[in-house]
Amino acid sequence: MGQKNQFPELKNDLLLKALRGEEVSRPPVWMMRQAGRYLPQYMELREKYTFFERVETPELACEITLQPIDELEPDAAIIFSDILTVPQALGIDVQMVPGKGPVMGNPIRSAEEAFAILAENVPQKLNHVMEAITLTRHELSGRVPLIGFAGAPWTLFCYMVQGEGSKDFNMAKSFLYQEPEASRHLMRELTRATIDYLQAQIEAGAQVVQIFDSWAGLLSPEDFNEWALPSLMEITAAIRDVPVILFAKGAWYALERLGFKSGAAGLGLDWTISPEFAREKTRDEITLQGNFDPSRLLAPVDEIRRQTRRMIDRFGTRRYIANLGHGILPHVPVDHARAFVNTVKEYG
Amino acid sequence: MGQKNQFPELKNDLLLKALRGEEVSRPPVWMMRQAGRYLPQYMELREKYTFFERVETPELACEITLQPIDELEPDAAIIFSDILTVPQALGIDVQMVPGKGPVMGNPIRSAEEAFAILAENVPQKLNHVMEAITLTRHELSGRVPLIGFAGAPWTLFCYMVQGEGSKDFNMAKSFLYQEPEASRHLMRELTRATIDYLQAQIEAGAQVVQIFDSWAGLLSPEDFNEWALPSLMEITAAIRDVPVILFAKGAWYALERLGFKSGAAGLGLDWTISPEFAREKTRDEITLQGNFDPSRLLAPVDEIRRQTRRMIDRFGTRRYIANLGHGILPHVPVDHARAFVNTVKEYG
Repeated sequence: MGQKNQFPELKNDLLLKALRGEEVSRPPVWMMRQAGRYLPQYMELREKYTFFERVETPELACEITLQPIDELEPDAAIIFSDILTVPQALGIDVQMVPGKGPVMGNPIRSAEEAFAILAENVPQKLNHVMEAITLTRHELSGRVPLIGFAGAPWTLFCYMVQGEGSKDFNMAKSFLYQEPEASRHLMRELTRATIDYLQAQIEAGAQVVQIFDSWAGLLSPEDFNEWALPSLMEITAAIRDVPVILFAKGAWYALERLGFKSGAAGLGLDWTISPEFAREKTRDEITLQGNFDPSRLLAPVDEIRRQTRRMIDRFGTRRYIANLGHGILPHVPVDHARAFVNTVKEYG
Repeated sequence: MGQKNQFPELKNDLLLKALRGEEVSRPPVWMMRQAGRYLPQYMELREKYTFFERVETPELACEITLQPIDELEPDAAIIFSDILTVPQALGIDVQMVPGKGPVMGNPIRSAEEAFAILAENVPQKLNHVMEAITLTRHELSGRVPLIGFAGAPWTLFCYMVQGEGSKDFNMAKSFLYQEPEASRHLMRELTRATIDYLQAQIEAGAQVVQIFDSWAGLLSPEDFNEWALPSLMEITAAIRDVPVILFAKGAWYALERLGFKSGAAGLGLDWTISPEFAREKTRDEITLQGNFDPSRLLAPVDEIRRQTRRMIDRFGTRRYIANLGHGILPHVPVDHARAFVNTVKEYG
């Protein structure tokens, strides 16, 4: 493995420029979950290896990360991994059950179990992720920057307490109200683990990091302020060497605070937020990223092109990163994903 | 069965007054899904009869509707039924699978299948609901008004196309983009079916009707305007004899249009919408209903009381109906539900 200062020179810095608020000829584009099931080459590896074999084998994670870069040529790569690596490092048993999603063998159901969680040696336990990042950074040869990522503490809390995916994560939310002290402990440890993990990813070669708070929108504005936002701010304050993108899905009510107070360089938006609303709430303080409705990639290609252009017209080309409003869906034809990426690249 | 003009006189008209914007001493209170699994007396019937036996037997539906009225004394009853009765009347086979929810045996997966749906004789096919309403209206003896309800066309479309519950209903959304003409046909028939159904419910004795657009929030603001809002407006325009409450869950971005243009008397709010935001967007044009976070009913009773009072402080007592922001959860202790209802009743 090479050292950080031996990495190949970056040839496409559109994403970094957009995150710094610099002028760009057109917005950069990438897609959340761009390495995934809609790609036939990913499906081939999926038949040979289990989910965690793919995540935990640096060579496989690297290969998967590069697949969409070769196929679609977006302006950024994002390391193939999973947000549930951190709960695993904290002693939670995570199984991927086909057709159902993640299931925890030992969810946290009592204050005692929550207090037992301690963020010790998280980067060491997840060293395979750092190896995958370093390897991928070399293999990318500077074509595009490499994004590292982590789940936000609140979203990890949801899975660790609920024990599986859920429409409303009501066991996790109830736990906040029934065991506030234990919940605060767990959020503190998750925040510490996330900071250590992201710093190790940066050390290993991540040039941008994104934090996914996929279940932020389940919280009321007040609970978001109390339970989710402080962790996000603590993480962004601790990450000084690379730009941070926050994606708090569903937290439309917090855009102003996320834009002005979070210390992040970029803010991910889901598709329920209009460009005008987002710009009004955040003014020119932060780069916005998003927010094409993933279901719309199943529309005819002409309609995808038209809607993508319209999205950029409305966001503008400055302080903007074109992306989807959530992960790409498994049954999107590759040509439709390509139409989205190419329309952004041909813009203007 | 008695005629409408023979119903007992209404003794508690708080809900109707609030919907007309009249002065009240304190806000009315009821809870979405107040007849449900958190009540031990409901669980007893659940062991003896299947879900659709409970829905389709007027005496059982009446008994279940009255259970929370006897137990908690809220200011309104809502008929025990299901939003999927309308798809059933349109020829969709609906099964309730324990632990999974509704599953359609013949979901709509092609334009041809969508065009085959015709809203014929919907009230006649759902006559058991009208019988349950008339019976319940008599059995209530005027204690509180009886609310009828229906699923909104968009939400029914979601289930009919997706074929089961889903986090994102992406098959239903994709269908909009891939088959716009067939989708428009299906939405038109669903709108016609809903109007006929609600008018029959009113004829049978419903004194207020609520329309549940549970999946409105999956649509972007533009798709909501194109696909969901026109049906809601057509329905409210057609219902002239009783007040209509619209609950478009997740459609925070449409509050202004729903408040000013929908023709509804009341607007349901989920818990992500602050009272201040909702009042600012709707000014004094419409009565607001909601929006206590259902998970918060698992907090200690003192905290429930404190948060309930705070909610009313913020909404104010005029043009306001205290309720949850979504249905009550199955594992809420009855005493916690009672604390919520009683705190509203003791307010001021």
